[in-house]
Amino acid sequence: MKQVSIALLGCGTVGKGVIDVLLMNGPIIEEQLNTKITVKRVLVRDINKYEQMNLPSAILFTNNFQDIIDDEEISLVVEVMGSADFAKECIEECFKRGKSVVSANKDLIADYGIPLLKLSKEKQVDFQFEASVAGGIPIVRAMYASLNGNKIDEIIGIMNGTTNYILTQMTCRGITYEEALREAQVKGYAEADPTNDVSGYDAARKIAILGTLGFHSEVTFRDVQVEGIEKITAEDIRNALEMGYVIKLLAIARQDKEGISLNVHPGFIRKTHPLANVADAYNGICVRGNCVGDVMFYGAGAGSLPTASAVVSDIMNVVLHEHIGVTGQRDFVSHEAKLKPQASICSPYYLRLLVQNTTGVLAGIATVLATYHISIRSLIQKDETADIAEVVLLIDQSSHCVVQKALKELSELTCVHTIANAIRVIEV
Amino acid sequence: MKQVSIALLGCGTVGKGVIDVLLMNGPIIEEQLNTKITVKRVLVRDINKYEQMNLPSAILFTNNFQDIIDDEEISLVVEVMGSADFAKECIEECFKRGKSVVSANKDLIADYGIPLLKLSKEKQVDFQFEASVAGGIPIVRAMYASLNGNKIDEIIGIMNGTTNYILTQMTCRGITYEEALREAQVKGYAEADPTNDVSGYDAARKIAILGTLGFHSEVTFRDVQVEGIEKITAEDIRNALEMGYVIKLLAIARQDKEGISLNVHPGFIRKTHPLANVADAYNGICVRGNCVGDVMFYGAGAGSLPTASAVVSDIMNVVLHEHIGVTGQRDFVSHEAKLKPQASICSPYYLRLLVQNTTGVLAGIATVLATYHISIRSLIQKDETADIAEVVLLIDQSSHCVVQKALKELSELTCVHTIANAIRVIEV
Ligand SMILES: NC(=O)c1ccc[n+]([C@@H]2O[C@H](COP(=O)([O-])OP(=O)(O)OC[C@H]3O[C@@H](n4cnc5c(N)ncnc54)[C@H](OP(=O)(O)O)[C@@H]3O)[C@@H](O)[C@H]2O)c1
Ligand SMILES: NC(=O)c1ccc[n+]([C@@H]2O[C@H](COP(=O)([O-])OP(=O)(O)OC[C@H]3O[C@@H](n4cnc5c(N)ncnc54)[C@H](OP(=O)(O)O)[C@@H]3O)[C@@H](O)[C@H]2O)c1
Repeated sequence: MKQVSIALLGCGTVGKGVIDVLLMNGPIIEEQLNTKITVKRVLVRDINKYEQMNLPSAILFTNNFQDIIDDEEISLVVEVMGSADFAKECIEECFKRGKSVVSANKDLIADYGIPLLKLSKEKQVDFQFEASVAGGIPIVRAMYASLNGNKIDEIIGIMNGTTNYILTQMTCRGITYEEALREAQVKGYAEADPTNDVSGYDAARKIAILGTLGFHSEVTFRDVQVEGIEKITAEDIRNALEMGYVIKLLAIARQDKEGISLNVHPGFIRKTHPLANVADAYNGICVRGNCVGDVMFYGAGAGSLPTASAVVSDIMNVVLHEHIGVTGQRDFVSHEAKLKPQASICSPYYLRLLVQNTTGVLAGIATVLATYHISIRSLIQKDETADIAEVVLLIDQSSHCVVQKALKELSELTCVHTIANAIRVIEV
Repeated sequence: MKQVSIALLGCGTVGKGVIDVLLMNGPIIEEQLNTKITVKRVLVRDINKYEQMNLPSAILFTNNFQDIIDDEEISLVVEVMGSADFAKECIEECFKRGKSVVSANKDLIADYGIPLLKLSKEKQVDFQFEASVAGGIPIVRAMYASLNGNKIDEIIGIMNGTTNYILTQMTCRGITYEEALREAQVKGYAEADPTNDVSGYDAARKIAILGTLGFHSEVTFRDVQVEGIEKITAEDIRNALEMGYVIKLLAIARQDKEGISLNVHPGFIRKTHPLANVADAYNGICVRGNCVGDVMFYGAGAGSLPTASAVVSDIMNVVLHEHIGVTGQRDFVSHEAKLKPQASICSPYYLRLLVQNTTGVLAGIATVLATYHISIRSLIQKDETADIAEVVLLIDQSSHCVVQKALKELSELTCVHTIANAIRVIEV
């Protein structure tokens, strides 16, 4: 049996999972590769912390990357540290020294994926990153190796477990955003500072990666318009349910004649939509190709072992490639991205306004919308208190820019107290 | 730009789809491969039929396989004819002449996949078969390249569109099996002779292929215990719905300490199970791995363009492999399959009996079940006519063998008119 020694950069949730999977499934992995994979060195910051953990004693811990890069025996480095800049430096150094890299780091891939792929190709080493999108769900390889005969029209998914857990709890139990967030923090689904998840940045990184793969042109985190779930209230969730919808944080990449659009925002989706049943911390991704139609992937988008499942499959692919003397390199990008102006992206909207409970209010609202040629699908007034009433509207397909203008004008009406929310409605 | 000439064996639903996709998405495919793929020759039986179709005039039709095998320019042959024996001969001949093969033929792969893979490896050519399971859903590559770090515990799926269409119509509209089948035939979802689909043979071939990939040991069509949907009645469907279940034709591969079991049979699944919402002719497959947990794939399991999407991705992979001078070969099988005796497979069951409407009937039934140590979860008697009543039972986890014996004894009770059905209940 052949032997391959690898190094890990990082030994947290994912790194520890990789060690566990390699041990737990060693025989299955070995029989497929005819190779024994050994974790030889691991880079961390605080070595002491790890020496107290019950990890295989043969592993050499270090806080000096040089120990890893200088080890000629190590041909494959697994980057599971997180953050973009230091990871990028390490990976570039690996490539230059002829070492292949597997990474789970979405921050890194979303920003520097394409330049790193180019460098890896130049240096004739492998670079794989299945775990960077939706943890254990095998979506990255599916995009470039299985759905690649399609023109991809749309990718739409629930790619952040934290926000999906929060929204699921709000939906099933009618609790508030604040309550659900606190619960998610207690259960370890949300971090102490939840911004990266609840503001949509994490999902934005993943949709940038999938957009690049799907449209064969480089798009990054900065090309994604991001809106989080912080403004979603129990009332919005309840209104959605009454109208036959659920609210999900959606990451959407679309391509049409005008170009590519990348968005992360809360959206109304019909209860019958396949994504509507993706509950709790699970992820689900629908890809629409011009031949295959709609394909959906569902599974655990994070967590130690599910994410390690993806990392280990990458490790196995690199080892197989090494055996036959190739790298898995493809040309992921073949042309410049043409971005579609956000202002022209259209969708129906749900609007929730708090208004003075007086006559003529609805007429006033309808008049403003008519000025902007926005047609109303439904309008319901709900009496909340004697003074303030809730008005819930569904408006037809309208451009983002027009809706923003109309909302501004509505907010200036004396009878309108607050524009409580404006949420896009996804039509299948 | 490089040029690759390919040949198709067969130009029916899938073959025509492949020609369409290569034309429609030519530019996308070319920019990824830096190669133009041209269909040069096509084998059919009745050339005249095809000359009247509006196909690219440069394609050379033939009814003589020798024309294809002797063409040195053709390095890749796409087998989309169907049937096992002639296809096998052709493919072996291709391998011997150094031509790679892509096949969509589940009958062939389920029976001869592993010997063919061995031969292709020996001859250093490529052999890919993504479309042989669930059409456009990228499950085959996911099994061997993305979930391969897992010990696979279970694969459970809806892998036949025809039967799923029939069962969906029966469920949603309360129509009979016969009515739904006729409708499926009119709509082109079922063939004039529907046996291959409704008896479960088609699904059996697919689960044999996935079982082989998942358990790394060769299992074939003959190792699958098959039961079709012919006996499912409107009453069974209605009873299922009342108890919170739907009935689906399930293909199941499981592995535990006692070995591998492969089954195709109708099953009760909870309405909340991810597969319960897989409707009409769609397919859905859940894979449970010991690291990744449950992953689900959903999409069009058949049809011209969806199936061609998978075939074209295989073609693209073969072309990429040719460029770097390798084949995609892995060792799919590493040990002998150990099959678990069917008789020992346990599950809860739904039973529907037609009985004489007299006192003491339920006591009689309960007594027989008690003899076999089968415990009853629920028992409902429904009055159907004055003379004959329907008894619906849910029994606990019991082995197939014991249930069969108990059913035989029940059928011998004078008060039992007919054992109308016995359907397994899938617990998540
Ligand atoms: N967690 C998931 O479910 C998941 C899913 C998909 C992708 N990912 C991605 O996987 C990566 C790792 O995530 P994680 O959850 O495993 O993170 P984590 O639990 O915070 O672990 C990070 C590890 O990296 C080490 N590390 C961080 N910065 C370092 C530095 N500058 N030098 C040396 N060591 C450093 C840490 O060592 P010390 O403890 O000594 O600081 C720790 O061992 C991230 O890119 C994340 O986005 C995670
Ligand atoms: N249809 C689907 O949605 C689907 C999905 C997944 C996999 N598949 C698999 O793909 C394969 C093709 O299916 P299909 O639906 O495309 O079949 P089809 O529509 O019946 O077409 C079969 C084609 O093969 C030719 N052919 C058959 N036997 C031949 C022989 N002995 N010599 C020469 N040509 C022969 C036929 O030519 P003539 O017309 O001249 O007889 C016809 O062009 C099958 O293995 C099937 O299981 C199909």
